[in-house]
Amino acid sequence: MKPSLTFWYEFASTYSWLAAERIEVLAAQAGVDVTWRPFLLGPIFVAQGWTSSPFNLFPAKGRNMWRDMERQRAHMGLPPITRPNPFPQNSLLAARVATALPAAARPQFSRAVYRAQFTQGRTIAHREVLSAILGDVGDAPSDALAAAEAAQTKNALRAATDQAQSLGIYGAPSFITGSGELFWGNDRLEQALEWAKDETI
Amino acid sequence: MKPSLTFWYEFASTYSWLAAERIEVLAAQAGVDVTWRPFLLGPIFVAQGWTSSPFNLFPAKGRNMWRDMERQRAHMGLPPITRPNPFPQNSLLAARVATALPAAARPQFSRAVYRAQFTQGRTIAHREVLSAILGDVGDAPSDALAAAEAAQTKNALRAATDQAQSLGIYGAPSFITGSGELFWGNDRLEQALEWAKDETI
Repeated sequence: MKPSLTFWYEFASTYSWLAAERIEVLAAQAGVDVTWRPFLLGPIFVAQGWTSSPFNLFPAKGRNMWRDMERQRAHMGLPPITRPNPFPQNSLLAARVATALPAAARPQFSRAVYRAQFTQGRTIAHREVLSAILGDVGDAPSDALAAAEAAQTKNALRAATDQAQSLGIYGAPSFITGSGELFWGNDRLEQALEWAKDETI
Repeated sequence: MKPSLTFWYEFASTYSWLAAERIEVLAAQAGVDVTWRPFLLGPIFVAQGWTSSPFNLFPAKGRNMWRDMERQRAHMGLPPITRPNPFPQNSLLAARVATALPAAARPQFSRAVYRAQFTQGRTIAHREVLSAILGDVGDAPSDALAAAEAAQTKNALRAATDQAQSLGIYGAPSFITGSGELFWGNDRLEQALEWAKDETI
């Protein structure tokens, strides 16, 4: 059995961006198969009584997150950050598009959405922003935006979010190994990959 | 100027324990002077509307924290975790003792408090628990418990907590470099030390 890891990510999440930039190279080095699963964190936050991102609800935490993101992205050699306004962005349409895409197109599309949002400050809730990104993504069918609005897609994303919550996910990014071990946060990506590898020895 | 880092820690904090176990060796390797500053996270949590630890307020977050702590302590070769009851512990007396101690005695005392709490499940609010620990610590004056109750000590701890909050600290452990750069969390210890070093080049 090849080791596997599910990458649960939320498009409005800053640290999900960093994980999306790193996971393919690290997983290839580790020989781990990765499944990209977009979901919505909003309903999970609402269920625990939050009406916005904790980075907005708790200003000191938010200030440090943006400073930390600037340090992290510089260390990774990513372009400077331009914050989207508002933050967090409404990520529903982007998550629906990613859900509707073939699995092979999901990583490239997702990274492009993150870069548009966090390095250009684009509004990822806008159809034209996502449409332009889709035009640049290989393997993206021309009707991806229409497919995003299909009932089947909406239901699939809702089911993914329900599943994330039932798996104990409370933040993004999260990683779950083949045997169900949950790791939270971009900082745990390396450990999650190691764990996934060890499961199959 | 020798590079320096201030280590802000809370005795009830699980990840502060991990940092306390690592910081001296890593700082010596990096050639960075470390100042240990105990403070209380409780008043800062209360100020942002929390009545307990976020690990209790948000059960999924708490479950993953304990699981993550078990993985981290195993990776570090620390003894297995025995959870204190209740969690978080009342850390006021321990923080006052650490405040009253000479700086040279603080690291050893603090690590012993963490191990009693998180590997033996001891109640660190009890004078006899702290008294036994003090007996094992070199450089600890015999009147440390009495000194902990002095008005001067109480005021110093209150001032430390106020200072932490004014510096933008919202969780523990936190690290602040000589120039004021703030890093939050045990996972950022290495980066904080690197930053402190680079400031003096």
